[in-house]
Amino acid sequence: MMSKSRLEAFSDGVFAILITILVLEFHVPEYHQGHLAAAIAQQWPEFLAYAVSYFYVGTLWLFHHDYVASLKVIDRNLNLINLLSMFSVTLFDYPMSLVATAIAERNTADIRVSFMIYSAVALFISSVYYVMYRYLYTHQQMMDKNHFVFDRGIKMDPLRSIALYGLAIITSIWSNWIGGLLLLAGIAFHFIAYLHLSRNRRQTSKLEV
Amino acid sequence: MMSKSRLEAFSDGVFAILITILVLEFHVPEYHQGHLAAAIAQQWPEFLAYAVSYFYVGTLWLFHHDYVASLKVIDRNLNLINLLSMFSVTLFDYPMSLVATAIAERNTADIRVSFMIYSAVALFISSVYYVMYRYLYTHQQMMDKNHFVFDRGIKMDPLRSIALYGLAIITSIWSNWIGGLLLLAGIAFHFIAYLHLSRNRRQTSKLEV
Amino acid sequence: MMSKSRLEAFSDGVFAILITILVLEFHVPEYHQGHLAAAIAQQWPEFLAYAVSYFYVGTLWLFHHDYVASLKVIDRNLNLINLLSMFSVTLFDYPMSLVATAIAERNTADIRVSFMIYSAVALFISSVYYVMYRYLYTHQQMMDKNHFVFDRGIKMDPLRSIALYGLAIITSIWSNWIGGLLLLAGIAFHFIAYLHLSRNRRQTSKLEV
Amino acid sequence: MMSKSRLEAFSDGVFAILITILVLEFHVPEYHQGHLAAAIAQQWPEFLAYAVSYFYVGTLWLFHHDYVASLKVIDRNLNLINLLSMFSVTLFDYPMSLVATAIAERNTADIRVSFMIYSAVALFISSVYYVMYRYLYTHQQMMDKNHFVFDRGIKMDPLRSIALYGLAIITSIWSNWIGGLLLLAGIAFHFIAYLHLSRNRRQTSKLEV
Repeated sequence: MMSKSRLEAFSDGVFAILITILVLEFHVPEYHQGHLAAAIAQQWPEFLAYAVSYFYVGTLWLFHHDYVASLKVIDRNLNLINLLSMFSVTLFDYPMSLVATAIAERNTADIRVSFMIYSAVALFISSVYYVMYRYLYTHQQMMDKNHFVFDRGIKMDPLRSIALYGLAIITSIWSNWIGGLLLLAGIAFHFIAYLHLSRNRRQTSKLEV
Repeated sequence: MMSKSRLEAFSDGVFAILITILVLEFHVPEYHQGHLAAAIAQQWPEFLAYAVSYFYVGTLWLFHHDYVASLKVIDRNLNLINLLSMFSVTLFDYPMSLVATAIAERNTADIRVSFMIYSAVALFISSVYYVMYRYLYTHQQMMDKNHFVFDRGIKMDPLRSIALYGLAIITSIWSNWIGGLLLLAGIAFHFIAYLHLSRNRRQTSKLEV
Repeated sequence: MMSKSRLEAFSDGVFAILITILVLEFHVPEYHQGHLAAAIAQQWPEFLAYAVSYFYVGTLWLFHHDYVASLKVIDRNLNLINLLSMFSVTLFDYPMSLVATAIAERNTADIRVSFMIYSAVALFISSVYYVMYRYLYTHQQMMDKNHFVFDRGIKMDPLRSIALYGLAIITSIWSNWIGGLLLLAGIAFHFIAYLHLSRNRRQTSKLEV
Repeated sequence: MMSKSRLEAFSDGVFAILITILVLEFHVPEYHQGHLAAAIAQQWPEFLAYAVSYFYVGTLWLFHHDYVASLKVIDRNLNLINLLSMFSVTLFDYPMSLVATAIAERNTADIRVSFMIYSAVALFISSVYYVMYRYLYTHQQMMDKNHFVFDRGIKMDPLRSIALYGLAIITSIWSNWIGGLLLLAGIAFHFIAYLHLSRNRRQTSKLEV
């Protein structure tokens, strides 16, 4: 009914722009003339925040890519869910910016707040992915059967992510380190889940051949 | 005569960039070290402005998507009208930015001005959509007949929007609240019109099958 | 040999981003609380500069669209010329920004400089378009014969533009008004040339049918 | 297994956005009213930095274009390597910004640091391209045999670039001029390598015909 190609073009556009805009948050530090090197050396946490965020959004793109590839058709509801999904993804620029600013100022209370909001947005993104998977699961006629592993392999993954990010928010109250590590664990979990998912799909493809 | 795919690619690009750039207006608040949480808590109106604007532009994209899908061919005039339409859409970044700034400063007179300009740009966007629909209605040979519901269902919608946004501008003179609510009503109206339109189309498709 | 679709995707991306980024130069004015309306009212020259620039870049996109549509194949040299063309087009953000800043400050000498650089970049863009047309003219085997009107109709147009922008630069020395009007004339000329070109093509198509 | 078109759309998006964002670093200079001309005249090093960076990223796009064109299929690992490649490419905005800032302030020590980081990012980009070529070389079944020249012609090129950029970093310690020239040589080398590569391919095509 609706065109898969325009949904892909719009989503690829949003992902490509967001991922390229993120790097603008990792900007030239303020410095006194002749002391640029020292100022840059202190930027490693910002660089780390950028690198982690880049691969987080990149993994979200990989999942989105596979999700759309597994669809035979697109209906109105899926288009609306996708619009919500892109909303949650664009929102991500804000916590990335908060974390970069808070880390640059090295204030513990502010870093805590920025980590909590970063985790909250990641939790929101995972919730929308859960709705996306759920919708596909209850509308199996929309599914391209060559991708049936997709559904089985990752049905519970967004729920696991939601739990991890929820835990990251709560533990941030006591410790930035534990909260930050759980946040990193959540992002690493996405990446591992993707590797796992694509390995499964490959094995199934081989069995079929 | 002209390529539908490049018109789509260019328009999707503009929509995707605009919708991703909007979020840059929802930026890290100025704050004193250690008081980031309080500063963020005060940002809810800016967040609301962003969320509303995102779904407004998203709905415009959905309509644009359906409009182009309903075309068999594209001619020069339609390409020019589309260029004008993209102009009205890019313009939207300015009032979004005005509203975010005015709300952040909590000055009633400035909020009024920003609401009026936001409504005026929305009115302009709807006027260009009216021209787009009108052109298709008077050039029915360009239409893909599988989408004939499209035309019947929404011919008057842009005029209704124009009336709503016009009213929003006028009532803003007396009250920011009424003006703001009418503005929200205008945006909600687009969304409801879209749901209505796509439901109609589905029913027609079923009858045909 | 090379893929037309990726050249189009890359070029459409650059055009869409540039045209959307231009609007960022038309930003919220600095104002004292409660005086936003007065500050906006003074922005009409910036708005005019944005509107003119938008339709200038939009017309460049229309020409680029038709140029690529008229190609059967793409070779390495054309890909390099296209890269140069995109360079000249991205460069355009700088004079747009200069003009917006200079106009906002209302200093005659600075406005003159900004107009001259704006004209110089427009002259550079037209020169690259001349090279593009010239290359197609001397490599007619790359041309899609259904578009033969394209070549005949506009061979001399870039040279006419170059002359107009050159004149705009020179006359700016004596008068901002004459320089500015010639600049506007150059941009209007592109638009009229495009209307003329597409009318020709339509008539030819009718004759063929 | 995976869709070549979305990998291309995403990568084209990132390249197009990055190359258009680069120009934002070449911004309106700070100036006293009436002295815009003098301020612009001093910007030639920033303009040079932009022009060089544009053609550097443009050449990277040309190589990426040819690389993907030479693939028959895409697997998970290639998608991950491409994500890493896009990471290295987006990172490029930072040193471009550093160089523009450092050059604008004319401080020798800061220019040195900015050149070294620019070279380091270029070295990183070349390393990822090396991994990309290496992966294709060890998975020849993924290759489109019509592009076999591609592999032979450029296998060692990334290693040569890595050596040049490494040398640029080291010599920058003694002289900004030598370091800067080696950096320029590295970028020119990419361009020459591309011309060489595409000439080879053309000759092979002729032999085959």
